Amino acid sequence: MLESLKESVLKANLALPKHELVTFTWGNVSGIDRDSSLVVIKPSGVEYSDLKRDDMVVVNLEGEVVEGNLKPSSDTATHVALYKAFSSIGGIVHTHSPWATSWAQAGKSIPAFGTTQADYFYGEVPCTRDMTKEEIQGAYELETGNVIVETFKDIDPMQVPAVLVKSHAPFVWGKDPNNAVHNAVVLEEVAKMASRTLQLNPHTTAMDQDLLDKHFLRKHGANAYYGQR
Amino acid sequence: MLESLKESVLKANLALPKHELVTFTWGNVSGIDRDSSLVVIKPSGVEYSDLKRDDMVVVNLEGEVVEGNLKPSSDTATHVALYKAFSSIGGIVHTHSPWATSWAQAGKSIPAFGTTQADYFYGEVPCTRDMTKEEIQGAYELETGNVIVETFKDIDPMQVPAVLVKSHAPFVWGKDPNNAVHNAVVLEEVAKMASRTLQLNPHTTAMDQDLLDKHFLRKHGANAYYGQR
Amino acid sequence: MLESLKESVLKANLALPKHELVTFTWGNVSGIDRDSSLVVIKPSGVEYSDLKRDDMVVVNLEGEVVEGNLKPSSDTATHVALYKAFSSIGGIVHTHSPWATSWAQAGKSIPAFGTTQADYFYGEVPCTRDMTKEEIQGAYELETGNVIVETFKDIDPMQVPAVLVKSHAPFVWGKDPNNAVHNAVVLEEVAKMASRTLQLNPHTTAMDQDLLDKHFLRKHGANAYYGQR
Amino acid sequence: MLESLKESVLKANLALPKHELVTFTWGNVSGIDRDSSLVVIKPSGVEYSDLKRDDMVVVNLEGEVVEGNLKPSSDTATHVALYKAFSSIGGIVHTHSPWATSWAQAGKSIPAFGTTQADYFYGEVPCTRDMTKEEIQGAYELETGNVIVETFKDIDPMQVPAVLVKSHAPFVWGKDPNNAVHNAVVLEEVAKMASRTLQLNPHTTAMDQDLLDKHFLRKHGANAYYGQR
Repeated sequence: MLESLKESVLKANLALPKHELVTFTWGNVSGIDRDSSLVVIKPSGVEYSDLKRDDMVVVNLEGEVVEGNLKPSSDTATHVALYKAFSSIGGIVHTHSPWATSWAQAGKSIPAFGTTQADYFYGEVPCTRDMTKEEIQGAYELETGNVIVETFKDIDPMQVPAVLVKSHAPFVWGKDPNNAVHNAVVLEEVAKMASRTLQLNPHTTAMDQDLLDKHFLRKHGANAYYGQR
Repeated sequence: MLESLKESVLKANLALPKHELVTFTWGNVSGIDRDSSLVVIKPSGVEYSDLKRDDMVVVNLEGEVVEGNLKPSSDTATHVALYKAFSSIGGIVHTHSPWATSWAQAGKSIPAFGTTQADYFYGEVPCTRDMTKEEIQGAYELETGNVIVETFKDIDPMQVPAVLVKSHAPFVWGKDPNNAVHNAVVLEEVAKMASRTLQLNPHTTAMDQDLLDKHFLRKHGANAYYGQR
Repeated sequence: MLESLKESVLKANLALPKHELVTFTWGNVSGIDRDSSLVVIKPSGVEYSDLKRDDMVVVNLEGEVVEGNLKPSSDTATHVALYKAFSSIGGIVHTHSPWATSWAQAGKSIPAFGTTQADYFYGEVPCTRDMTKEEIQGAYELETGNVIVETFKDIDPMQVPAVLVKSHAPFVWGKDPNNAVHNAVVLEEVAKMASRTLQLNPHTTAMDQDLLDKHFLRKHGANAYYGQR
Repeated sequence: MLESLKESVLKANLALPKHELVTFTWGNVSGIDRDSSLVVIKPSGVEYSDLKRDDMVVVNLEGEVVEGNLKPSSDTATHVALYKAFSSIGGIVHTHSPWATSWAQAGKSIPAFGTTQADYFYGEVPCTRDMTKEEIQGAYELETGNVIVETFKDIDPMQVPAVLVKSHAPFVWGKDPNNAVHNAVVLEEVAKMASRTLQLNPHTTAMDQDLLDKHFLRKHGANAYYGQR
């Protein structure tokens, strides 16, 4: 079932090492079929070089395995929570990409310092709050999803398609698995540049709001004029 | 028309990923034919791996498409403004190369700290002022060109062939498209080294003026003695 | 003798340049056969590209050569001291990998700032004390082993499989040579991210203890649920 | 003439881009034949990919071309000055390798922070003083050599085979051209690690003298025991 989505999810997973976003198996991509509400996700702890289409695991929105011989990613409950809460997203990526993870470890949101970020993120990339002892010791992966959703209570997830989970690493999403990986590459790049920007000038403030609007809206929304569409 | 210039512009665009100056499609190169006052530029948002010579777009100095099936780069108006104001340049590169972009985001000019910079830039690489609300909401890409030209009112663009656009990224130029890419590589390298220099010694001052003169002039101008000419 | 262990040790040594952990010959891997108490180790100062299985040197736990035509690594006495003191380890790696070495040079333990570290190290990666003049001028390599063992008097070496030797570089271990190299890659990655974390926020404190427990224990011990076992 | 030395010098030059020590043509290697007092050096401004053995230029210790169709490196006078003053060196490398150049631009000597440096450099790698207006405007490249020699008036150039020329970049040497390149790679590595060490701990002091002695002397001099000799 969902052979075409499995193919997309496989390709998106294989793109992670190609873009140098992962070390070993530290990452996973999933995609959702909104018609059937089924999610296709990478199996847990399998090397990218060994991954095949039929290793992809199908789970429902309760996180139960519907098809597949392998255990799904240990982060499955987080993915599922995001698909439930963010109805317009079609793919999710989790990595420990080093620059974004450094911001997550520092517990800091990435301010929008320039047009590179503004082209993809309509403002800062937020960092979640600390999780409580109960959340950590309870249904940890599900609660990770919940704390992300809480962080976005006033943010449109399609306008800011990424989050930094405090003391952990980023989750990134998009309209499909491939687009989510694209955004994960962008996040790593803006995380790197924002870090170097602060090293050069620790007092750098967020970019001008008009410039942010200009760049985000020339690529997104009704009046976009970037590219060939 | 302008087949040979199209070939040069194509090659120069393909050199951007080779020199690791771009992520995805974040960059573009143009070249000008001064006889006809026509500019050849990369189409907007096309992947480098898909680019062909005949995808290059020809525009005039009003920025109007003269030949080509694709939309020209969304930065075309900036390129055109620079060709009009800087009569001796033959090629322009725009990238979001990470080190130079970090300086642009920090809003700081890159001081001449050493002979690597002095070999190519006769002094600091300037950063533009903030653009006004009117400039951003008006003819934004043209105004970006105008603010660059304003920054160079007392600087010879052939002696300092690059600028950092504040909160955005660098524009770099040269005598032709290939030379502009060469200068873009140099800019990224000096941006990296200047950043590390300041980390080691935040009080580093600009290099000695005599040393700057010596290095710039041994490679440029009437008495140059570097290389085989 | 020990052909299979020699093969593992050779492969693990060859993995060092592949993972960009070494420059020139700056690294070595060994493995132990606990039944015979014999250690197989890389010969001293031989290029990785020239290494063959039969170049591997066999030594006993007194550090005496039992088999082999080449001199064993100059760090052999350190390896042997660790095998004697840490009875459950099966492989040891020494490199001068640049991020971990920078922490060793700074004389600082790497705090556990995030789940990447928690997945492999149950807390901070400790840095040893300064060695005394007597230790340095005496049986230096053996004393290096002793000071590592002293550092672990209250730490389980299987829960924290790495150490930073002050003003020197890391030693890393694991259940076998391949696992030791795996941990050396992880160490370099967490050393890099911890350094960047501190640059972003110099006041970052160690991660929440509950979160550390959660991540270490979901991959290690009786209740582990990561991966496919 | 000197075909074998030309071959060594060619190979050493080609090793520079392989070790990522140079951008474009920013580097050169020379070697000396002490019997004839003739120096073989890279031609000025020629791309590494185009270099052939017969492009190498032979000069005497007055810097005059003895054989070759191309102009020798513009830095030839610096090389010659070093060969004259440092009678035991056999090869010299000049690059603008980015980490070492950042130290040169910051005007700081690289302290010996760890055993990686101690294995090759018997103490800090010194940075030269500022050159005077007269030196810069006079025989600049020769004076660059003179200021290096002045910096080494109390240092044995075989014990510290590298220097940082202030506001410029490193010169590195060795017993032959290949060994000089080897030392240039080491210099870049220790420059990188020393920079990161200071970022982690700005108060890091030079390593223990006994440890420096131990490491330098276990690889160099009469009692060396590293490697297979």
